[in-house]
Amino acid sequence: MHNEFELDTNSIDRLAELAVRTGLALEPEQDLLITAPVESLPLVRRICIHAYKAGAGVVTPIFTDPEVTLARYQHAIDSSFDVSPSWLFKGMGEAFDSNTARLAIVGDDPMLLSEQDPKKVGRVNKANSLASKPTRERITRFDINWNIISWPSVSWAKRMFPDLSEFEAQYNLAEAIFSASRVDQEDPISAWREHNAALRTRSDWLNGQNFQALHFFGPGTNLSVGLADGHEWMGGASIAKNGITCNPNIPSEEVFTTPHALKVEGHVCSTKPLSHQGTLIEEIKVKFESGRIVEARSSKGEEVLLKVLDSDEGARRLGEVALVPHSSPISQSGLLFYNTLFDENAASHIALGQCYSKCFQNGGDLSKEEVENRGGNSSMIHIDWMIGSNQIDVDGISQDGKKIPVFRKGEWA
Amino acid sequence: MHNEFELDTNSIDRLAELAVRTGLALEPEQDLLITAPVESLPLVRRICIHAYKAGAGVVTPIFTDPEVTLARYQHAIDSSFDVSPSWLFKGMGEAFDSNTARLAIVGDDPMLLSEQDPKKVGRVNKANSLASKPTRERITRFDINWNIISWPSVSWAKRMFPDLSEFEAQYNLAEAIFSASRVDQEDPISAWREHNAALRTRSDWLNGQNFQALHFFGPGTNLSVGLADGHEWMGGASIAKNGITCNPNIPSEEVFTTPHALKVEGHVCSTKPLSHQGTLIEEIKVKFESGRIVEARSSKGEEVLLKVLDSDEGARRLGEVALVPHSSPISQSGLLFYNTLFDENAASHIALGQCYSKCFQNGGDLSKEEVENRGGNSSMIHIDWMIGSNQIDVDGISQDGKKIPVFRKGEWA
Repeated sequence: MHNEFELDTNSIDRLAELAVRTGLALEPEQDLLITAPVESLPLVRRICIHAYKAGAGVVTPIFTDPEVTLARYQHAIDSSFDVSPSWLFKGMGEAFDSNTARLAIVGDDPMLLSEQDPKKVGRVNKANSLASKPTRERITRFDINWNIISWPSVSWAKRMFPDLSEFEAQYNLAEAIFSASRVDQEDPISAWREHNAALRTRSDWLNGQNFQALHFFGPGTNLSVGLADGHEWMGGASIAKNGITCNPNIPSEEVFTTPHALKVEGHVCSTKPLSHQGTLIEEIKVKFESGRIVEARSSKGEEVLLKVLDSDEGARRLGEVALVPHSSPISQSGLLFYNTLFDENAASHIALGQCYSKCFQNGGDLSKEEVENRGGNSSMIHIDWMIGSNQIDVDGISQDGKKIPVFRKGEWA
Repeated sequence: MHNEFELDTNSIDRLAELAVRTGLALEPEQDLLITAPVESLPLVRRICIHAYKAGAGVVTPIFTDPEVTLARYQHAIDSSFDVSPSWLFKGMGEAFDSNTARLAIVGDDPMLLSEQDPKKVGRVNKANSLASKPTRERITRFDINWNIISWPSVSWAKRMFPDLSEFEAQYNLAEAIFSASRVDQEDPISAWREHNAALRTRSDWLNGQNFQALHFFGPGTNLSVGLADGHEWMGGASIAKNGITCNPNIPSEEVFTTPHALKVEGHVCSTKPLSHQGTLIEEIKVKFESGRIVEARSSKGEEVLLKVLDSDEGARRLGEVALVPHSSPISQSGLLFYNTLFDENAASHIALGQCYSKCFQNGGDLSKEEVENRGGNSSMIHIDWMIGSNQIDVDGISQDGKKIPVFRKGEWA
């Protein structure tokens, strides 16, 4: 073991500053809640410095540790797997009600739970989904400014680069994260301003078209995704209900909107593995009827997939559809990250479960009933999976039934 | 820098097991909330394993980091110093209402904040005291089983052993903690059973005497501490209101009870430095009249001391008096730990602020008003400081005014 291989501390600092200034656009006197793997401490410390420099009230990091997670699967009594620290999620919900901003750092080993009993994994996921409703709702409603970035943890890096040493693997993943997050550029904050403008051009065009549906065609895929009434396409920066324009995801290459929960028909198969809370789900094939998944299988992780679909009624319906060209920088890196934050930006995708109520015209200031009446889905889950590739075409269907090419061979038409 | 100097992982594991089995006496299906410095992760991981083996529901560690704390003092805007994450404290209070057990690991650098602006330190302490009321109340009322242990962090160790290398200092502090916590003994759990029995013999004798007051005499000290009506002496194991017999402090060498908030008279000076939330307060001298501190000074940290006394009305009155012989193992180690958990077990002491409502006859199941009527003090602070040494004598004053020797030259008479 040697210690010479060090991550680029300058890039870590630039990522921290980008998260505070562009990701969150933290305002003076705003509190900040961070969730982070304990391994990302060097990044968290830099974020705290930049947050306080930006005028933060109090910054509260909540750390998680994979060994603590595993201790439960290895030693707990059976009833433990239905329990969740609901007091913590409820408290977070209250923090958001007081205008606390939210930063999530992801980076745990995507395969952490792959050798644990899938039934127990499913039970824990369900208990956490129920308990975390107060926090999830406030995020999907965009009550406050939020942002997700990532940390190159060693265990994640070793999944991506199994043949490299721990330090080399971590270094490579770090460089991939810095590049995808644009912190390797001269001025990351300007680079994001330009990138946001480019995404806005795409979403403006789609909003002008006001399609009633998108058709996806390709090997194994023949899918019509009806769009919600009064849906709005979004991408890059978002205005939260507290008036702050944040960038929820770093990186982000997608434009996305709300499908109609009752109007999805046909077959679709996944084009990249889905890493869901520690289990890899590969080669998903599902059939939709009237918006609902009526058949589902996968070559790996099927038990977890079926548990996910049974989470609640809305788990079998779509809450998001997103377009990403095959030429996106993350796709071109050729890397499979086993992490949705990255992989969803390498391909067009759909999401099971809860819709973003913000993806409606007029800023999405709609009641729960109005969202439902317009076709917005609700669920305690929101899980993205990739259906795009360089073999996929997408047509937009206009309100008068005309087909307009949107993607050809995975690129904007 | 070298890595050869490793802490004894076997002792870390024994300390973790002792905290779960003897400190908390965690019950099956009980949830556990841990607060810990991020540096104590190796101990937290072992605690999680032992907690789940003992049948824990869900174990939730909340980590703190000194660099995160310092970032605020170094970079935050002025208004930040009156803000506290009240949502987190409120959530913890709710966890305790659901019978969640509480384990605190202490180990931060006792001088962490010594170079920061004492006014800002005072403001943060006050904001945290106010916000943490829901958690503090439930702990002082003994609603649930709780326990405090410690981790030999490098920064703390370097304060105690400034001339040693980081690794040697940490190793020495670790060995001192293992010894004081009795995990260096053949069977730590049996050792604690015997130790608890010995402390009970002392508290039983004091309860049989039912003194109306204690008189402390020595250099600079002439203090009469009236005891609360119906006070009860305790020590070692305590029965929490949830019915679980826990050992709140590891180590613990004291027997203690509730003074009468209105009946403390005379002068007293501290015999060891008080390390209070990052500031060292040395050579405290105070004068009591009718239970209230009317004069206070100290040779170091006086500004912080005076801020503490102005926290609220009850901060100038006593909430605890405790007897510890000068021959206690911690005293005999000759080490100054700059940490109340250890230093309070090296000498008799008093505490400013909130009383333990449990220290009354019949298990202390009293209302707030009853506690007050019997002389129990209330405050948002509870700060122990040492007044015992081998030069201090203590007399008990019986209900009919007789003087009975309790301590002579710092030892049980």
